[in-house]
Amino acid sequence: MEIVDQTRLPHARVTVSLASGSDAAHAIRSMQVRGAPLIGATAAYGLALALRADPSDAGLAAGYALLIATRPTAVNLRWALDRVRARVTPLAPAARAAAAWDEASAIAAEDIATNRALGGHGVQIIEALAGARRSPVQILTHCNAGALATLGWGTATAPIYLAHAAGVSLHVWVSETRPRLQGARLTAWELRAHGVPHTLVIDAAGAALMRQRRVDLVLVGADRVTRNGDVCNKIGTYEKALAARDNDVPMYAAVPSTTIDWTLASGDDVPIEERDAAEVLNPGGEPIAPAGTVVANPAFDVTPGRLFTGLITERGVCAASKAGLSGLFPEHVHE
Amino acid sequence: MEIVDQTRLPHARVTVSLASGSDAAHAIRSMQVRGAPLIGATAAYGLALALRADPSDAGLAAGYALLIATRPTAVNLRWALDRVRARVTPLAPAARAAAAWDEASAIAAEDIATNRALGGHGVQIIEALAGARRSPVQILTHCNAGALATLGWGTATAPIYLAHAAGVSLHVWVSETRPRLQGARLTAWELRAHGVPHTLVIDAAGAALMRQRRVDLVLVGADRVTRNGDVCNKIGTYEKALAARDNDVPMYAAVPSTTIDWTLASGDDVPIEERDAAEVLNPGGEPIAPAGTVVANPAFDVTPGRLFTGLITERGVCAASKAGLSGLFPEHVHE
Repeated sequence: MEIVDQTRLPHARVTVSLASGSDAAHAIRSMQVRGAPLIGATAAYGLALALRADPSDAGLAAGYALLIATRPTAVNLRWALDRVRARVTPLAPAARAAAAWDEASAIAAEDIATNRALGGHGVQIIEALAGARRSPVQILTHCNAGALATLGWGTATAPIYLAHAAGVSLHVWVSETRPRLQGARLTAWELRAHGVPHTLVIDAAGAALMRQRRVDLVLVGADRVTRNGDVCNKIGTYEKALAARDNDVPMYAAVPSTTIDWTLASGDDVPIEERDAAEVLNPGGEPIAPAGTVVANPAFDVTPGRLFTGLITERGVCAASKAGLSGLFPEHVHE
Repeated sequence: MEIVDQTRLPHARVTVSLASGSDAAHAIRSMQVRGAPLIGATAAYGLALALRADPSDAGLAAGYALLIATRPTAVNLRWALDRVRARVTPLAPAARAAAAWDEASAIAAEDIATNRALGGHGVQIIEALAGARRSPVQILTHCNAGALATLGWGTATAPIYLAHAAGVSLHVWVSETRPRLQGARLTAWELRAHGVPHTLVIDAAGAALMRQRRVDLVLVGADRVTRNGDVCNKIGTYEKALAARDNDVPMYAAVPSTTIDWTLASGDDVPIEERDAAEVLNPGGEPIAPAGTVVANPAFDVTPGRLFTGLITERGVCAASKAGLSGLFPEHVHE
């Protein structure tokens, strides 16, 4: 399979071939691919590749173990691997690789359809804000929950692309998203490619823009949503939500149901990935702090559901709460 | 006069001689010196240098105009220039340069004394949090309101250095402070030089740390405080304050009275400096976003006084409100 190496964007668009489970694990771990849905799909294909090399029970277990260990926070990773494993486990080894590839392809196709459906619900929020006004709807987003994070239209960006395609005037504030700058590197690149007007700002500027009434809507993705509606997403999302609440700006997380972890009661239970200090210390060339400076680098934060106006899913928009999620997904309610 | 070129820190400690008013203006504009109190003192010395070259009324007016235009947000700049101008205007031109130098020296000396007094009040807050506990008091600070921003002990750092010197166990979370990274480059350097334990984090991590109960106190400086207690400070301060409130973490701004602008009713009236896009686009070597990306770069934000636990001044701690400030500084109340 082929992926776009996102660590090379925006300066070069480089395609990389993944030929083995190890290649896929490396691509996820090194963040050549990132974004919860794309991590899931890549892992599914990666398990299929691993089974081509060794379709035995031991090979299946080893491939699963290799891939599940790549990133701890996005729940789509486990979900996709569990799904492929469940499909192939009953099969004879000789049939496993093809079935796994088929399942991975189904996951990818469903992801595209899910994002399209999610976008269809989200675009109504943007259209309602646009109303009869002539000035652009001002949308702030953080990190990259775009086409690069998924297959198809992206999650948080799907409503934006659909609104733009429908002729709604809009402008996107792109939060740069330290430490790895996915907003600056990826979201700005995507929006530019789609012709959507946008302006790059540092992460800390989001709250100030909201206080100045220059933001009408905040739209973000999610790496994992717990069953009470808490949203684990790129670090900085919680601050955006606090600012949105303080300034009465509506804020939504775009959440395909594959990102909901029904096994966890609250966001406090989500494992938060601690990443390498070098991401903080070397945003460009030389280090930004004195040699030997101690660094903490949590990659995600948890935003309490109470701070969101709602969650946008492929089944519609709901409150970021246990009741809201249970209403849209009753099949997951097991009291 | 000699300054430390702060744009070269932390990699090199380079001293620069200022020989003229233009040199001083360049040092302020290029941020070789920064931080509200140090900007004020440097401008005062700069006006003295300008008067050495031309002590006429025209020379005084030109030097004042050159220096006042360097940075728009810190009120200390205007305060210091007004003070020097008032001192020398009645004098014969031949006496002006020496008198201006004397006045600049007085401003510098008072700044040191003010920070020491402010630190004495602030250290009591840290000592109260320390109480009888054995674990370190966890303090988060943003940007650099340290010795490098002032003369002497700094403003927000004065209580920290005094507590550390008194043997209080503490640890400082250093917010890197995009776009110019004064936290990473300057505060980490200062704290290291003083032997104060600290950890560098990205700006967006502050709220997450507070939610995890890993912050006991937030201490920041200010560039301008309006008479209702609104605090204009480095962009990102507002987000820290929202997070502190949401998590019941006490938060104070360290405010020498020279930073209070009694002429402005609220923070909405403070001019916010918009700085160069290159600060955002080039944190290190190559640009972080596609060529041609539009950037907004507001350097400061306004935090409503209601979000602060209090303001620490050289006269004591007060509420961040009109009543609080009026109580400590009754001479500025003119109804």
